[in-house]
Amino acid sequence: MNAMHDAPSQTRWHRAHACIGHGVTAIDTPSLVIDLDAMDRNLARMAAFAAGHGLRLRPHAKMHKSAELAQLQMARGAVGVCVQKTDEALALAHAGVRDIYISNEVIDPSKLLRLAQAVRDLPTRFSIAVDSALGVQRLAQALHAAGVSASGCLDVLVEIDVGQGRCGIASGVPAVALAQAIAAQPALRFAGLQAYHGGAQHRRPAAERAAAMAEAIHAVQTTCEALNAAGIDVPLVTGAGTGTFVIEAASGIWGELQAGSYLFMDADYAANEADPRTPAFEHALFVKSQVMSRCDGHAVCDAGHKSHAIDSGMPGVWFPDGLAYTSGGDEHGVLRAAGNQPLPGLGEVVWLVPGHCDPTVNLHDLMVGVRGGLAAGHVERIVRVDARGCLG
Amino acid sequence: MNAMHDAPSQTRWHRAHACIGHGVTAIDTPSLVIDLDAMDRNLARMAAFAAGHGLRLRPHAKMHKSAELAQLQMARGAVGVCVQKTDEALALAHAGVRDIYISNEVIDPSKLLRLAQAVRDLPTRFSIAVDSALGVQRLAQALHAAGVSASGCLDVLVEIDVGQGRCGIASGVPAVALAQAIAAQPALRFAGLQAYHGGAQHRRPAAERAAAMAEAIHAVQTTCEALNAAGIDVPLVTGAGTGTFVIEAASGIWGELQAGSYLFMDADYAANEADPRTPAFEHALFVKSQVMSRCDGHAVCDAGHKSHAIDSGMPGVWFPDGLAYTSGGDEHGVLRAAGNQPLPGLGEVVWLVPGHCDPTVNLHDLMVGVRGGLAAGHVERIVRVDARGCLG
Repeated sequence: MNAMHDAPSQTRWHRAHACIGHGVTAIDTPSLVIDLDAMDRNLARMAAFAAGHGLRLRPHAKMHKSAELAQLQMARGAVGVCVQKTDEALALAHAGVRDIYISNEVIDPSKLLRLAQAVRDLPTRFSIAVDSALGVQRLAQALHAAGVSASGCLDVLVEIDVGQGRCGIASGVPAVALAQAIAAQPALRFAGLQAYHGGAQHRRPAAERAAAMAEAIHAVQTTCEALNAAGIDVPLVTGAGTGTFVIEAASGIWGELQAGSYLFMDADYAANEADPRTPAFEHALFVKSQVMSRCDGHAVCDAGHKSHAIDSGMPGVWFPDGLAYTSGGDEHGVLRAAGNQPLPGLGEVVWLVPGHCDPTVNLHDLMVGVRGGLAAGHVERIVRVDARGCLG
Repeated sequence: MNAMHDAPSQTRWHRAHACIGHGVTAIDTPSLVIDLDAMDRNLARMAAFAAGHGLRLRPHAKMHKSAELAQLQMARGAVGVCVQKTDEALALAHAGVRDIYISNEVIDPSKLLRLAQAVRDLPTRFSIAVDSALGVQRLAQALHAAGVSASGCLDVLVEIDVGQGRCGIASGVPAVALAQAIAAQPALRFAGLQAYHGGAQHRRPAAERAAAMAEAIHAVQTTCEALNAAGIDVPLVTGAGTGTFVIEAASGIWGELQAGSYLFMDADYAANEADPRTPAFEHALFVKSQVMSRCDGHAVCDAGHKSHAIDSGMPGVWFPDGLAYTSGGDEHGVLRAAGNQPLPGLGEVVWLVPGHCDPTVNLHDLMVGVRGGLAAGHVERIVRVDARGCLG
């Protein structure tokens, strides 16, 4: 089957966005650009935070989808990474990432078989979340079909709904039967609870995030109590995002943090009212664009919805100052001066800060890593988005 | 430079979404699926409309980004295709498309040099729009730098703003100097006017679209009059989208239609109040997803913002009936019953109709072409999205 897919992708016309060693000015537009200096500072700040709190850090690689960045995070102390999809896990494992947790449900037998074959064949340590008895049953069947029979060879975490109202079994007693179902499968090991409140991450007032997380903390506590009352130990509670991880860390309940966006820090997270306990993360991901049309009232840049995701709003204009970006459709951005600033001229460069980094990265095959700043730096590396488009 | 980009893409882990000849049930989720029977009917309806009006059809390939579909459209009478980006043009030309018009401005000298080299080296006939004297000058310089000196070897169209307020020079007299600047460059030929009103395409009431197009028609007429008064002939007026092309066709002014979305007919275009003159296009593009989490009140499917674009709203649920899709984020969709319909169970398939086909296709490397219907059909072909991610 792969040949069908590989062949076209290998014969496809490609073009480089940039050359290593060249200046920023030579980067084509629109391109996704990483400020490597800012990214390194974000890396160090989060590593220090996790170490300072005695917590495991397992950043979410669904954000960057890059084996190179996952390995960089692990070199700075992360125990591994999270992903949301089976094929994200396989793409990163094939690219050399050695500890990958699928923090999401997989119910499709064909996907579970792909995962089981990877558990059998690859040196990567995999783990996965479940929220249904059917999910546990199909996972065990897939491992059996792949001939994986080693005792407790796959860690499985029970996802509980801690307030988002999306996936996850109800907190408290319902989680007990699911943990028992996992324990009843020789090839599986009950490894703890997946407890992530996605709905709390972007509530602007810090107090609202704290209130939402208070409910999440209660949900996790009642679930741990129910499991303990049934004689089941909870080895780990894992979760947290960039908007709330300081709350999970302070709770003393979570043992592992899954925050991912801290690495690039998008415009949406930057719009949150800061919690004073949160490290000062910097924007590290930008779209380099340029003006390709001008009239008296506005300038049009060459970056639209196909260059950056807009599910969390339009990108901010990082440089030049005083410009507002409004949608110009899939391939255009309309720029207007907020005050009396002059509009940029034809061909002038405009730097954008994406509203939401995860789906923005997923639009690009490559990210251009710049050292020495966006103004006068040079291209140090080209970072491949290994799991781009891995939806299955 | 290309080697840097090719190498990673060729070593990247890939997986097929489907096997040719297999049933629809074997298509992985989430996958982008084309109902080939519906697409063929849409193709035939638009070909008949253009032929019946004596108009050239140049569908916009920014929608499907596929050389195979571009060639299918040309086999059914299209004179060529449009694209918005230099690298879309180059990707499709390298994949065998022989007549490509860049209906957008390109001001970057490096992009213009890539285009000029393609004009020199490839058998494809290229053409391009401009809206500035600098654009004309840089285009001529790029052709000269590439050693392209044949007289009138590149057709250039002047884009005028017909009401959208995005790109395009002001209508009327200002277009005259630009046409003269083109004519003054030996390698360039003034080929007519680019007149597209993107802002009119999705106004729901047909009367509002007609009112917006009345202004556009006036803008084109005054521009043609100004050009004729200056002794300049206007060989062609090209433009129109799926929301208004019947109006351009009825005007007697446009000679070429650029509509693209008619081929797949997304949910956003289907929401327009129909103009009785418009052929009855059918939905031909779907996202196959499946339920991967369930609770009492809702089901969660495995298709989120990374599977379909949401710039024109959430996808519609095509099957099963009576379900409403709300955002569950990048990887999830939350499904609720509109009435008393039962919710689909774990693993059940859910078919979605994307809100906007262009940026949805751009999220996928492949489209799975199904013959015989979504319920019991089989996979006839895998359609490659050759220009996916070609932003430059």
